[in-house]
Amino acid sequence: MHCVDCQRGVRLGSWTRHATRSALQDALRICGRPGVISFSLGLPATELLPANELEEACIYTLANNRAALQYGQPCPALKTHIVSLMRMRGVECTEGQIFLTNGAQQALSLLVKLLLNRRGSVIAEEVSYPGFQQIVQFYRAEILAVSADPNTGMEVDEVEWQLSRGIHPAFIYTIPNGHNPLGINLSIEKRHRLLAVSQRYAVPIIEEDPYGFLSYDCMIPPLRAQCDDAVFYVGSFSKIITPSFRVGWIVVPVNLVSFLDILKESSDLNVASFSQYVIARLLDSGFLSSHLRHLQSEYSCRRDAMLTALSDEFPTGSRWARPECGVYIWVRLPQNWDTMRLLEVTASSENVVFMPGSAFSPNPSPLVRASMRLNFSHPSIEHIKEGVHRLSSAVQSYHERHARTDL
Amino acid sequence: MHCVDCQRGVRLGSWTRHATRSALQDALRICGRPGVISFSLGLPATELLPANELEEACIYTLANNRAALQYGQPCPALKTHIVSLMRMRGVECTEGQIFLTNGAQQALSLLVKLLLNRRGSVIAEEVSYPGFQQIVQFYRAEILAVSADPNTGMEVDEVEWQLSRGIHPAFIYTIPNGHNPLGINLSIEKRHRLLAVSQRYAVPIIEEDPYGFLSYDCMIPPLRAQCDDAVFYVGSFSKIITPSFRVGWIVVPVNLVSFLDILKESSDLNVASFSQYVIARLLDSGFLSSHLRHLQSEYSCRRDAMLTALSDEFPTGSRWARPECGVYIWVRLPQNWDTMRLLEVTASSENVVFMPGSAFSPNPSPLVRASMRLNFSHPSIEHIKEGVHRLSSAVQSYHERHARTDL
Repeated sequence: MHCVDCQRGVRLGSWTRHATRSALQDALRICGRPGVISFSLGLPATELLPANELEEACIYTLANNRAALQYGQPCPALKTHIVSLMRMRGVECTEGQIFLTNGAQQALSLLVKLLLNRRGSVIAEEVSYPGFQQIVQFYRAEILAVSADPNTGMEVDEVEWQLSRGIHPAFIYTIPNGHNPLGINLSIEKRHRLLAVSQRYAVPIIEEDPYGFLSYDCMIPPLRAQCDDAVFYVGSFSKIITPSFRVGWIVVPVNLVSFLDILKESSDLNVASFSQYVIARLLDSGFLSSHLRHLQSEYSCRRDAMLTALSDEFPTGSRWARPECGVYIWVRLPQNWDTMRLLEVTASSENVVFMPGSAFSPNPSPLVRASMRLNFSHPSIEHIKEGVHRLSSAVQSYHERHARTDL
Repeated sequence: MHCVDCQRGVRLGSWTRHATRSALQDALRICGRPGVISFSLGLPATELLPANELEEACIYTLANNRAALQYGQPCPALKTHIVSLMRMRGVECTEGQIFLTNGAQQALSLLVKLLLNRRGSVIAEEVSYPGFQQIVQFYRAEILAVSADPNTGMEVDEVEWQLSRGIHPAFIYTIPNGHNPLGINLSIEKRHRLLAVSQRYAVPIIEEDPYGFLSYDCMIPPLRAQCDDAVFYVGSFSKIITPSFRVGWIVVPVNLVSFLDILKESSDLNVASFSQYVIARLLDSGFLSSHLRHLQSEYSCRRDAMLTALSDEFPTGSRWARPECGVYIWVRLPQNWDTMRLLEVTASSENVVFMPGSAFSPNPSPLVRASMRLNFSHPSIEHIKEGVHRLSSAVQSYHERHARTDL
């Protein structure tokens, strides 16, 4: 009974009519091609992933904890570790406020479902994490875009202006530490103002903080450290231990946990018990502190290598800020360039890839189109030097070609 | 800046106004209490979980496959194994049709999102898996409930009657093998008619098959074996290897995979790479065939022990069918009993728990209220005997009390 005709009759949900592929998934595919130097994605350095420590933790867990192989409630020991980690970030909270998720992406997805109604609105920077935008699109919600300064972050004046118009967005979304894609920290002064505005207008903040532990100078506390109830904090082990276990968390007021329970259960029941118990065991060993120092040292060297290479190689008129945290540098080429078109050249002829600015905005401005996000955590220092060199060659020839044709 | 006032101002999504806790999560909590014999949940037998084989697979994966610790595309080797498993179930498909998920629950959640519009409708049995009902509730969708015969399953005449009224539900949902909660297989004759009806009215079927490999007599192929395009098949390793890695899959037409990619990415990026590679390694060893035989043998003994205990202990007028597949027995007590009230007694005074029939229906009929689902895969044979004994004592005293007060 092979029913060729059936499928024509199958009606899909209406969202499929305006669904678009994700640039990040395409980038993930290209990254795997041999010979390609990738600055595209925010991957941790593969050679720094703690395989030996995970092996010990897996063996211990399998030998000592049968609950780790069964369905179960969230692992209490893991929550206790997360409370300690949060304290390292300056956040006081209790186990009851920790909600475990499959990494930061699911945390965002659940929080958006908790807070946002269909055809509602949210506030976010004009360039923001595409995985966030993708979630919001399902709600046909409006993203009220505010500008972001490439050195100090989100323009809080614009947030206030939006709120003063009398609209009531479901939340404000931001990554104040090691912003994705801008790579920078929200300035201290803007943090205070953002919290004040959030409270004055009773609009909560979703604060994503996957990079907060990857601070290279001094570690700046997240917004959540200053406000208990109106900042929903999202953390993750993906960048600091491994993304392959898919463990992240939310810090929320206790009275909202039962709603998240319902959302999580209907999504996929629970976070893989095995992942939870293995990560908890890994944290028992106290390994994370030294591992973080190691990552901070390695990644800051890579960042410096990329900054030096950019200074040495990139054309006059290009601009970037020095990230104090996270894994990205946001480079703005001279205006009117289009990094999406540049990417086609670099991917095909130079074997080097990056994320074009327009991947981070539903309606990219010319400045955004002229920008690119470069990751420095995943490539080695040699690849960073070689990759920036290849990139600047492509930039140079793109410039020459367009100087002839466009002007 | 402790903002007590903020939270009052935080508006939650409108779904939270009619959100209800899940009976299954509550059951999971009670199951963990010491001394409790639980027939509540469909857990695999903890002592049969393959800890040694998983240890070998973890060690091998960590030593040989760095990709297993990184972000990445779905593991090709795992998809190939799933194609072979599907062939064991009588289903011909290709790797390109396999979509990996966090267990069957996420598979359902993504398929519902793919197919169902807000305020749409779906067809399902009047008693069905609560985790499915929970997903559909978010869409404010109508579940067009059809009856199910406790021996032969879904009443296909009623499906046809619903469709002949001119409505166009997004899909028909069912578990034809080892039905949850009825424990039975859809009869062969009804399978043919259900497929024919699905095709005549161009309404696809979501076929959930987590128990298909746990067949105790002969293994009946799923509906998907007879129809390529209009049956969306959901499989899972949770009941046959371990639920703790959260790996399941969907078999869908190739042209729908890109939509599922978008849904999955926005939900949580991807299935934990480590889980994928470890399960793939475990399957490399060929261990699953003998493990399945072992599970089939063990679980059929437990089923038989429960059937015998029910016959010996339960009051006249109780009815149940002998499951040929899966992990549940659906027991109907004499009419007008309420197993939800019975559960309060058994949980508090007899330390034995089960799922009351009303947990499986948004609008339970008196027959459903008088029913209970008993799981036989998780408790030992001793616990099955002891648990059924405790249950029948409670049933007896419940009966005597109500014979006095209700009549």
